[in-house]
Amino acid sequence: MTDAPHAADRVAPPSEAVRRQAADRLAGLATPAGALGRLGEAAVWLAAVQGHCPPSPPSDVRVVVFAGDHGVTAHGVSAYPPEITGLMVQQFLSGGAGVAVLARLHGAALRVLDLGVDVDAGTFPAEVSAYKVRRGSGAIHIEDALTGDETLRALAAGAAVAAEEVAAGADLLIAGDMGIGNTTPSAALIAATLGIGADEVTGRGSGIDVDALAHKQDVVDRALERAGARVADPVDRLTALGSADLAAQVGFLAEAARLGVPVVLDGVISVACALVAEDYAPGSSAWFAAGHRSPEPAQSLALEKLGLEPLLDLGMRLGEGSGAVAAIPVLRSAAAALAHVSLLADVLGAQDA
Amino acid sequence: MTDAPHAADRVAPPSEAVRRQAADRLAGLATPAGALGRLGEAAVWLAAVQGHCPPSPPSDVRVVVFAGDHGVTAHGVSAYPPEITGLMVQQFLSGGAGVAVLARLHGAALRVLDLGVDVDAGTFPAEVSAYKVRRGSGAIHIEDALTGDETLRALAAGAAVAAEEVAAGADLLIAGDMGIGNTTPSAALIAATLGIGADEVTGRGSGIDVDALAHKQDVVDRALERAGARVADPVDRLTALGSADLAAQVGFLAEAARLGVPVVLDGVISVACALVAEDYAPGSSAWFAAGHRSPEPAQSLALEKLGLEPLLDLGMRLGEGSGAVAAIPVLRSAAAALAHVSLLADVLGAQDA
Repeated sequence: MTDAPHAADRVAPPSEAVRRQAADRLAGLATPAGALGRLGEAAVWLAAVQGHCPPSPPSDVRVVVFAGDHGVTAHGVSAYPPEITGLMVQQFLSGGAGVAVLARLHGAALRVLDLGVDVDAGTFPAEVSAYKVRRGSGAIHIEDALTGDETLRALAAGAAVAAEEVAAGADLLIAGDMGIGNTTPSAALIAATLGIGADEVTGRGSGIDVDALAHKQDVVDRALERAGARVADPVDRLTALGSADLAAQVGFLAEAARLGVPVVLDGVISVACALVAEDYAPGSSAWFAAGHRSPEPAQSLALEKLGLEPLLDLGMRLGEGSGAVAAIPVLRSAAAALAHVSLLADVLGAQDA
Repeated sequence: MTDAPHAADRVAPPSEAVRRQAADRLAGLATPAGALGRLGEAAVWLAAVQGHCPPSPPSDVRVVVFAGDHGVTAHGVSAYPPEITGLMVQQFLSGGAGVAVLARLHGAALRVLDLGVDVDAGTFPAEVSAYKVRRGSGAIHIEDALTGDETLRALAAGAAVAAEEVAAGADLLIAGDMGIGNTTPSAALIAATLGIGADEVTGRGSGIDVDALAHKQDVVDRALERAGARVADPVDRLTALGSADLAAQVGFLAEAARLGVPVVLDGVISVACALVAEDYAPGSSAWFAAGHRSPEPAQSLALEKLGLEPLLDLGMRLGEGSGAVAAIPVLRSAAAALAHVSLLADVLGAQDA
């Protein structure tokens, strides 16, 4: 524990008055009660976070991918070598990555940032590396991921990026990830936040076999033991178990919530960051919707804690923000339904007329 | 049994060569194996039914809603009076129905047809009633839904409509439903096709209570008993247990498959028709994808038989084709991902270059 607690202010909640107004409108639609199912619930949430009823289909959606390498990758936790992270950043820039393809299709802007990729300076265009914190983050089972100062810089970077996107007009934000090995610190952060063991949170990531899974679980276990009681504080938790890219994502999510802009979460990395963001800036998660259920076990545990249920469950495990981007049309369907389906009163009125 | 078996010719399958080509392309993408999950599977199906790889995101989607009334509605199987069917047809025309709102949002055309609504001639514009078979279909627990001639006319009407939409350029078709009471004949058709009891197929439809549910189950049970062995033939099954709107939907689905145009199925009504279409025109279901899981128990049983798993599970129970329309963007995501995500060979080639 430090004297100054490592936490942003409590985040103001979405409008309860608008939420109630939207729930009333939903109940007044010319459909059987509850017939819109989760579309109806999503529409009510969207109205509350937008602060107006009926809600508008999100039209200025911005995806920011936070990229970084992870020291654990040198210790056999991933099916892929760390060099892939840098190659994939190039794929985001050239438009051939999964999330880039889906973002184009669904009219969302895409920005990729190198927070901690293990590449030489100048590898990426300057704007990609503008917020870089370090080259690779520490191998969390043997050392801290970051220094305390680096964690604060990463949190501030993410917050600054969220503020930039909101100032530019974003009405819906998505944080994506790119980083070989990043399901390991994500699992560790979720275990530390929920107070559960490595066995409950460790999954196969991009596709490791049973032996590698046992090893990965051991790495998470050792990381949790090494971090000890420091994990009670969300910033210290990121320092011990996170990474530059994950800490930036936490700052991004918390700032989006603070600025009152809704976020669609993606897979286990995104949801791990959302869980820490809720500790760091209590009340943040009221601004979050879950886009897609991950096959990683830790994601469902974290979502349950946050009280969120994903809109999609397509078995995707690509990361990058791709599951969240795939869910954008569901939110648009929800908003359009609540805004434009006839009200029962109007239908009956037209009949009488 | 009649001398001329009541069945269309066997439907030609989607291209196996293209399916294999698409599966190879999916395996060659610069993503971890299987990382696109069901998006990848949907993309492979789409390539096979389109006959080219990579597939194109469906761009000329046409929704046809088949409307009709059901004699069982006078016997307490629905939470709503039959007059709602006609009112809702007006809502499709004015654009305020759920499926109309979603179709506009996702760029799909919408057409509504009165096959058997219990309204006076002239209630709807002429083009809506052009294929009308009768006013209301029979109460299936006490009488046949249709005469044999009416069933053939309804099947032909659906086939003609599918052919019209395909001729006009449709690259994806959706059949929607409107008809108070229509989950009752749908449940009966599924039970008769699968050879299971009323207790396994009867659900709450638009929202009936426990007592009404028991009564609805009894209605389905009596209908099945009354129809007896005639249900072995798909056309006789529609005559005994279906309706004009359901028979037309069967004709529409079978003809879409015969013309080689893919279809996204909706809820329990749509899937009941698909199940009968597979009997009527064997091989049809290879051209169908399931859009949305219905809370109606019969839908899941029918989908299992057809080997289909829905793309969405949002708890919607609006019918009208709305769940299928909500799934259009998932198919578009699937097609775009397979078409535009980089191939591993290209990424490695670029690295070497």
